[in-house]
Amino acid sequence: MTDQPLSDLDVAHAMADAARAVILPYFRAHDLSADNKDAAGFDPVTQADRAAEEAMRAVLARHRPQDGIWGEEFGQSRGDSGRLWVLDPIDGTRGFISGTPTWGVLIAVGPEGQGPDLGMIDQPYIQERFWGNAGGAFCRGPAGLSRLQTRAARDLGAAILFTTFPEVGRSQDRAGFEAVGNAVQLVRYGMDCYAYALLAAGQIDLVIEAGLNAYDIQGPLAVIEAAGGIVTDWRGGAVHQGGQVLAAANADIHASALKRLSPFAG
Amino acid sequence: MTDQPLSDLDVAHAMADAARAVILPYFRAHDLSADNKDAAGFDPVTQADRAAEEAMRAVLARHRPQDGIWGEEFGQSRGDSGRLWVLDPIDGTRGFISGTPTWGVLIAVGPEGQGPDLGMIDQPYIQERFWGNAGGAFCRGPAGLSRLQTRAARDLGAAILFTTFPEVGRSQDRAGFEAVGNAVQLVRYGMDCYAYALLAAGQIDLVIEAGLNAYDIQGPLAVIEAAGGIVTDWRGGAVHQGGQVLAAANADIHASALKRLSPFAG
Repeated sequence: MTDQPLSDLDVAHAMADAARAVILPYFRAHDLSADNKDAAGFDPVTQADRAAEEAMRAVLARHRPQDGIWGEEFGQSRGDSGRLWVLDPIDGTRGFISGTPTWGVLIAVGPEGQGPDLGMIDQPYIQERFWGNAGGAFCRGPAGLSRLQTRAARDLGAAILFTTFPEVGRSQDRAGFEAVGNAVQLVRYGMDCYAYALLAAGQIDLVIEAGLNAYDIQGPLAVIEAAGGIVTDWRGGAVHQGGQVLAAANADIHASALKRLSPFAG
Repeated sequence: MTDQPLSDLDVAHAMADAARAVILPYFRAHDLSADNKDAAGFDPVTQADRAAEEAMRAVLARHRPQDGIWGEEFGQSRGDSGRLWVLDPIDGTRGFISGTPTWGVLIAVGPEGQGPDLGMIDQPYIQERFWGNAGGAFCRGPAGLSRLQTRAARDLGAAILFTTFPEVGRSQDRAGFEAVGNAVQLVRYGMDCYAYALLAAGQIDLVIEAGLNAYDIQGPLAVIEAAGGIVTDWRGGAVHQGGQVLAAANADIHASALKRLSPFAG
């Protein structure tokens, strides 16, 4: 049997399907054990994380054997095609072990070193998937299939901002976040990667984070850009390698937030 | 046609079904307008709130015409049966207008003035419902039907605490929250009433809130107690009239948290 040639989007859907099937039996299981991989803090890694990355790597081994892979759990695997898949099997492990439905499977692919041209955010429990590439940005979930479009410009004082603060960040990061947080209408917390999906879906205006890894941001970045948004670091530069992230619904609100954040960049 | 006699649980399911049908067309609608009913802060009330309470009141008018009703949007309607239904059509309006799937429809019923003997938390978008009464506590959702059971005792240092802080609360309330928050393993934010559902479901250990109204807590209270948990104020007394709330998975962790909270009660 010969495999039909699949597009990158087909492959990403197959990976997310595989991750869902592997993760869901662990979700809200009462015997879930969380290892502590960060002795200084609380950074649980579950069996589900590892099993989901293995399942996604198996899909790539079959359909994209020449591509490189960078996954949160198993690190980098070099390829020779010039394409790199960047995977976070469970973004929001703290939310996962608490039973919340706002963690996600993050998938991105693009030319190595240049950032993603396709991204996907999957929430297995809700059975809701957000993706974006040159063909547009879409959501498929409980309400069916819909096209994603970020919000039109509005004043910062009318904006909704999401963040993982106060849980994360150095004091300098927090000061930057507060410089924007104090100016918006509403700040909401604790949504993990789901906040990026809400930004792509036109529900909110801004997401501000710090201390991210490449695999935390590449999937969301591609979804948001395909939906019309802008994702940069706190200086306005490329952020596909992680760090301090400003994700905005449009150029106007990006500029307003950037002006307040940039003194705290670095 | 004569209506069959329905149990309170049947009526509550019918109310939650009616609220779901009314609310979902508004959820994530791009033309959703949020009024500002609190001039001092940001307390949006949407058409969905009002329509959902009307839909639930219509179910009660048909099946429980003698019962009293206390709803967030339309206030108190006196009955003469001695039974009172306490309704919050959308708990977590801020989350609702942001598109998050963690707001809920809250329903409670019990003898007037004495607190609820049945409670329900419904999340329409996820299609997930949690309820509890003398017959036990249950969840029906994406993973099917399951019985709810709160967590067994563990040290405060191994506990997961949810709260709406830092969004709400007076400085005294925050100090109390922090007295517990600093002692637990993990604090998570921003889950609205969904946090109570996670407590009932054995996923987390504690929820601490302040400034709640009766309709914010009565539904969750009955679900959590039916699942084996304990819900009191910060002095250990009855909390069905609202105020400062400590919801705990079991008596041990309730006692540990209460010791730290009680200096900040009142």
